[in-house]
Amino acid sequence: MHTISHYQDLISTYFSELHLNKEPKNLYQPIEYILHLGGKRMRPILTLMATEVFDVDCKKALAAATAIEVFHNFSLVHDDIMDDAPLRRGNETVHEKWNINTGILSGDAMLILAYQHFEEYEPKIFRELAKLFSKTALEVCEGQQYDVDFETRDDVTIAEYLKMIEYKTAVLVGAAMKMGAIVAETSDENANLIYDFGLNLGIAFQLQDDYLDAFGDPETFGKQVGGDIIENKKTYLYLKAIQYAKATDKEQLLHLFSIQPSENLDKINSVKELFNTTGASDATQTAIQTYTFKAFETLEEMNIGADKKEMLRVFGENLMSRNV
Amino acid sequence: MHTISHYQDLISTYFSELHLNKEPKNLYQPIEYILHLGGKRMRPILTLMATEVFDVDCKKALAAATAIEVFHNFSLVHDDIMDDAPLRRGNETVHEKWNINTGILSGDAMLILAYQHFEEYEPKIFRELAKLFSKTALEVCEGQQYDVDFETRDDVTIAEYLKMIEYKTAVLVGAAMKMGAIVAETSDENANLIYDFGLNLGIAFQLQDDYLDAFGDPETFGKQVGGDIIENKKTYLYLKAIQYAKATDKEQLLHLFSIQPSENLDKINSVKELFNTTGASDATQTAIQTYTFKAFETLEEMNIGADKKEMLRVFGENLMSRNV
Repeated sequence: MHTISHYQDLISTYFSELHLNKEPKNLYQPIEYILHLGGKRMRPILTLMATEVFDVDCKKALAAATAIEVFHNFSLVHDDIMDDAPLRRGNETVHEKWNINTGILSGDAMLILAYQHFEEYEPKIFRELAKLFSKTALEVCEGQQYDVDFETRDDVTIAEYLKMIEYKTAVLVGAAMKMGAIVAETSDENANLIYDFGLNLGIAFQLQDDYLDAFGDPETFGKQVGGDIIENKKTYLYLKAIQYAKATDKEQLLHLFSIQPSENLDKINSVKELFNTTGASDATQTAIQTYTFKAFETLEEMNIGADKKEMLRVFGENLMSRNV
Repeated sequence: MHTISHYQDLISTYFSELHLNKEPKNLYQPIEYILHLGGKRMRPILTLMATEVFDVDCKKALAAATAIEVFHNFSLVHDDIMDDAPLRRGNETVHEKWNINTGILSGDAMLILAYQHFEEYEPKIFRELAKLFSKTALEVCEGQQYDVDFETRDDVTIAEYLKMIEYKTAVLVGAAMKMGAIVAETSDENANLIYDFGLNLGIAFQLQDDYLDAFGDPETFGKQVGGDIIENKKTYLYLKAIQYAKATDKEQLLHLFSIQPSENLDKINSVKELFNTTGASDATQTAIQTYTFKAFETLEEMNIGADKKEMLRVFGENLMSRNV
């Protein structure tokens, strides 16, 4: 097995050879821009790692890993248009730097480019990868639509919220790992188990993201702490607080999530206190642990060496403690 | 061989069984809406026809034909956003009926759904179809980008214009026919020849569209006659007129294509006269004939029966006389 930074180097080299310096420039320059803004390359790393877990050279998985990362960046470009987001990874978003039409069309081209990376593989593997990719990509679109729908709904259930984050975020983590398994031509059972490992870890990671958005350390958490509260976003924390709160607390929380004060600090502190007093914070921590544990449980069933299981567990633990 | 209306019935039945009545509704309803607005289904018909030209049951090609039509409609949804178009086939465009974000996301989902139709086929054919599809889809994006770029350029050459319509329109016609050949598992040579047949017929058809936009019969031409002139669109007619015109005519044409009068009739008539007197009209007619002839020439090389060649030729002639 290799280190994370070894995988990152491999991906970085592969990305630098993608030949995106093509015509028409107005289509390809935005693609080159977003693909080279960086990011942690977490998803393609997982693909490479999964291939090695099944004892196959991870270089064989570089094309599939690239497809996943190109797709992820496609979804960022289109989501940023929908969210009217000015910044991505500290830089201008594509539709800000160019315009909305460029964001739409360059995004479309990225979705197609993602599929093209599977052409590296022979027919049987190509078909399996593309099929998993299409299923996953469609679920990501569905997850994004649920997220949009939830903004204007006040009856979102916990189950619906979990399905939304599963589709919008976690399925791509599961698929990234399963693609490594497909390239390694391991058993279907192993491939499905590593998918479940990624899926549950992805849900745990997203729930932790919700938690850290409110309670994270501003020094180490990448985004603005309290951002979800400012935007009145119905996260797991909020939905649990609404579920657990007594009448007056619930009323206060509903009020706080209906206002947009120019100065947010009081609102953030009041909401965080309610998250704590209602028990929503504890419930969220428990949910994070439950999904992390679920992920680790699937490792037990996997037909791989103990050292590989240990490696995946350590990676999962580092991911959840945000040391990766 | 079957009749056009037989192919249309097959496609219509297949489309009615697509099961798009899925959740989330806000994602799938716009897809169902645009796919059932109708249209002539010219591209999927070509796929079915091509399969039968190579003596295979056209029903085998229904999934590939559907992929082509779903992709075509995806491109309409996103193009209509970019063009800010209010109407499509006499009905509200998706982004007008819903909103821009819905148009973006439902379009994305359609592009993925298109790929999923290839899953009907076994790995070797799946890979060939998906590979041709990706190449073609990317060219369509490039063609759309060139079209956008040309709006703000005043040095577009005839060669660039021809490449733009080839990519934006004709490659999909070629690919639609080649997919029929792939499904029929004919020789690579036949598959490439029918691609060229479709490609050249597609270019001829688009040039004729340019011509009819100015000189068509308002009774039978589907769109508003003079629409391109009103929008100052640099079509083949315009570029040829600029190329051929003497200094004063060129100056007048450049002026006419810089104004947006509230009453367009005088402008349309003046431009049409310049198209005629400069010889641009004749040159466009010649180009249409040249590309149609090129298409028919490839038929000669094809390894199929004389009856099949005759059938494709008659279809091509009907298409070009707009009797299909």
